Amino acid sequence: MSTSASNTSTALFTDHYELTMLGSALSDGTGERDCVFEVFARRLPAGRRYGVVAGTARVLDAIADFRFTEAELEQLRATAVVDAETLDWLAGYRFTGDVDGYPEGELYFPGSPILTVRGSFAECVLLETIVLSILNHDSAVASAAARMSSAANGRPIIEMGGRRTHEQAAVAAARAAYLGGFATTSNLEAGRRYGISTRGTVAHAFMLLHDTEEAAFRAQLEKLGADTTLLVDTYDITAGIETAVRVAGPELGAIRIDSGDVGVLARKAREQLDALGAKDTRIVVSGDLDEHAIAALRAEPVDAYGVGTSVVTGSGAPTAGMVYKLVEVGGRPVAKRSEHKASRGGRKAALRRHKPTGTALEEVVYPTRNPPQVGPYDRDLHIPLLRGGQPVSDLPTLEDGRQRLRRALVSLPWEGLKLSSGDPAIPTTFT
Amino acid sequence: MSTSASNTSTALFTDHYELTMLGSALSDGTGERDCVFEVFARRLPAGRRYGVVAGTARVLDAIADFRFTEAELEQLRATAVVDAETLDWLAGYRFTGDVDGYPEGELYFPGSPILTVRGSFAECVLLETIVLSILNHDSAVASAAARMSSAANGRPIIEMGGRRTHEQAAVAAARAAYLGGFATTSNLEAGRRYGISTRGTVAHAFMLLHDTEEAAFRAQLEKLGADTTLLVDTYDITAGIETAVRVAGPELGAIRIDSGDVGVLARKAREQLDALGAKDTRIVVSGDLDEHAIAALRAEPVDAYGVGTSVVTGSGAPTAGMVYKLVEVGGRPVAKRSEHKASRGGRKAALRRHKPTGTALEEVVYPTRNPPQVGPYDRDLHIPLLRGGQPVSDLPTLEDGRQRLRRALVSLPWEGLKLSSGDPAIPTTFT
Repeated sequence: MSTSASNTSTALFTDHYELTMLGSALSDGTGERDCVFEVFARRLPAGRRYGVVAGTARVLDAIADFRFTEAELEQLRATAVVDAETLDWLAGYRFTGDVDGYPEGELYFPGSPILTVRGSFAECVLLETIVLSILNHDSAVASAAARMSSAANGRPIIEMGGRRTHEQAAVAAARAAYLGGFATTSNLEAGRRYGISTRGTVAHAFMLLHDTEEAAFRAQLEKLGADTTLLVDTYDITAGIETAVRVAGPELGAIRIDSGDVGVLARKAREQLDALGAKDTRIVVSGDLDEHAIAALRAEPVDAYGVGTSVVTGSGAPTAGMVYKLVEVGGRPVAKRSEHKASRGGRKAALRRHKPTGTALEEVVYPTRNPPQVGPYDRDLHIPLLRGGQPVSDLPTLEDGRQRLRRALVSLPWEGLKLSSGDPAIPTTFT
Repeated sequence: MSTSASNTSTALFTDHYELTMLGSALSDGTGERDCVFEVFARRLPAGRRYGVVAGTARVLDAIADFRFTEAELEQLRATAVVDAETLDWLAGYRFTGDVDGYPEGELYFPGSPILTVRGSFAECVLLETIVLSILNHDSAVASAAARMSSAANGRPIIEMGGRRTHEQAAVAAARAAYLGGFATTSNLEAGRRYGISTRGTVAHAFMLLHDTEEAAFRAQLEKLGADTTLLVDTYDITAGIETAVRVAGPELGAIRIDSGDVGVLARKAREQLDALGAKDTRIVVSGDLDEHAIAALRAEPVDAYGVGTSVVTGSGAPTAGMVYKLVEVGGRPVAKRSEHKASRGGRKAALRRHKPTGTALEEVVYPTRNPPQVGPYDRDLHIPLLRGGQPVSDLPTLEDGRQRLRRALVSLPWEGLKLSSGDPAIPTTFT
């Protein structure tokens, strides 16, 4: 047994009931009915004013890899999850339907139709878990990252939370944090898989390994050059900074402070660095920072932040709470009775209305059969993603998503960027 | 790009700084120094009374797969993370040191030395991120699962949270929940990878797909037999139960209620089922349950729980906060200055003292060079895991861990099992 997947199939990242539903629906013929499933969040996490869509590109990859090879079929056969007839059907499975949705980096609000999956019941029902796993995780991280990026107000943030979350989730979290505005990541696999720039120098272990702080600094400088970041808080910060500038010279790239009252320490460090002539040496702070701590440091002489736990765990909201609901069968809207108030049946799309100044006014969710008039300041939110199971050309890239989010955040009313708890930044209107 | 790993190497689930530390330490010779790294948690998540160790078996697998194949080396070369000399060293990397630790399913408290890794600095420093990612994630889930299992007081719990977390984290979460006392999982990949029994029947989508509730019930019964679980809350629960028993007969296995005030609904459902002669039909409830909701349902006629979001997100504590710290270099204890109070240098082990009745009294963390007297009711907590990089024989299985946790929870003082916030169930003493 390995922590890595034994092959690239994503087909068993699936709940048992999707297979039993499939078996029954294939038997009674309902499996062939045309269906529309919709991904949406009934509400934002408590107090949040917006959510950020992330993971869509990973969803499309996962759908492409959603194949039942002999290894998956054998597992289902051995555990008798489905019968032989269903196994035959699964052996030929390939999603052939259409998918539309919000592009990555787009904001979402309660009820926004984030992803719409169309096809036969049989082919769509199997995708529920993989679609939700990815969107719920990645959007939770990107939403937290966006709040932190707003709070950092242009100062770069390094994502360094891989050790606080599952090893594979760490890679997706680094991607989502980058989408959310982070500058770089410590995660090497995220560098490989997504081309995100990685960063890192030393931990306290490296300092303690050496007989003196000076010996550790010298070893690091020897290898990484003066434009590196020296970790100065292992023993005494003032002495550490003095030693750092003495051995690296005033061209030292940066110092990092990872403990204590980092605001006060940064101020003292800046004064000391300036007095030592290291006026361009940057100050990086880390250690249990979240969006509130980052905002509180806005007036301090901090040049960059390292953020770990809080971003990979969604800063209090580790999952986005999105659901995958059947909204249409054979052209007929359907909805669970208890959901009649909270959601609506039928295939939907959405547009966002803005003031002439560009400030967002409302999210309008409408039946695709009955679109509203589109004004000059309205923006359609759905883009096509898959047609006949195949990706459309010119799908947005990760960089596109990052830029899209930057623009979208600027369009929010100013209350929407407040970190304190509040209502969604704009209301959702269902027409 | 795929959501699955391109090969089984775990070597890039690593932070950039581990590689830069390695490069410097190889250059100046300190990389060869004998070191001891220790995994511990400075504190439990706020208000928690115990933690549950989980992930150790996955850590050992990940260490075995921690190899730099040409694919990993090429990535490090292309991004210039390390120099050619370090790449050569990495090409031959294989962990050859020793690992001891708490077995899975053991309880831990602040400062418990959960895992001890010994070897050269160079070989040990690389493992920090992968070790912490796994232990922090899996222990967070297992700790939450144990609280829920305690609250359920013997009634089975089905883990069904895969859709609320990263797709690979979902598999590890299902494993950790099973270790924590859950009975089964919905996650098919957890069934394949860990042999955990999977469960599932239908979602509301299946009910809505059909023209009537009765047609959906009949389709399900046809395929899965009368000993299945019918979902009765799509339209009207009372009518749903009436239809369910009418079409399935009184031998119907179970009904599931997924919405509303499930306690009140379960009581009414029990009365109705009994009146219809379906006295053995079980009642399964689900829908945003956590340990507190489960405890509140203790007096209700509920036969099983389905738990999703809360368990996979650690029920408010999505990461265990464990750290991987260098505690000894060349036989000499080391510690960061700011940690002098919170932790201690030097290689350590631990034992748990108990009353003659078997109730735990305290966690004693001691220097391995100076072990305390072991009384008749004391239990050593460390077991050997790797020797010379190789797994020892007779490593505990997942089932062993599950049984161990069951026994360990029984040994806690009664306050230790309270769900309300409080101090750790037993104090940690450093000798």
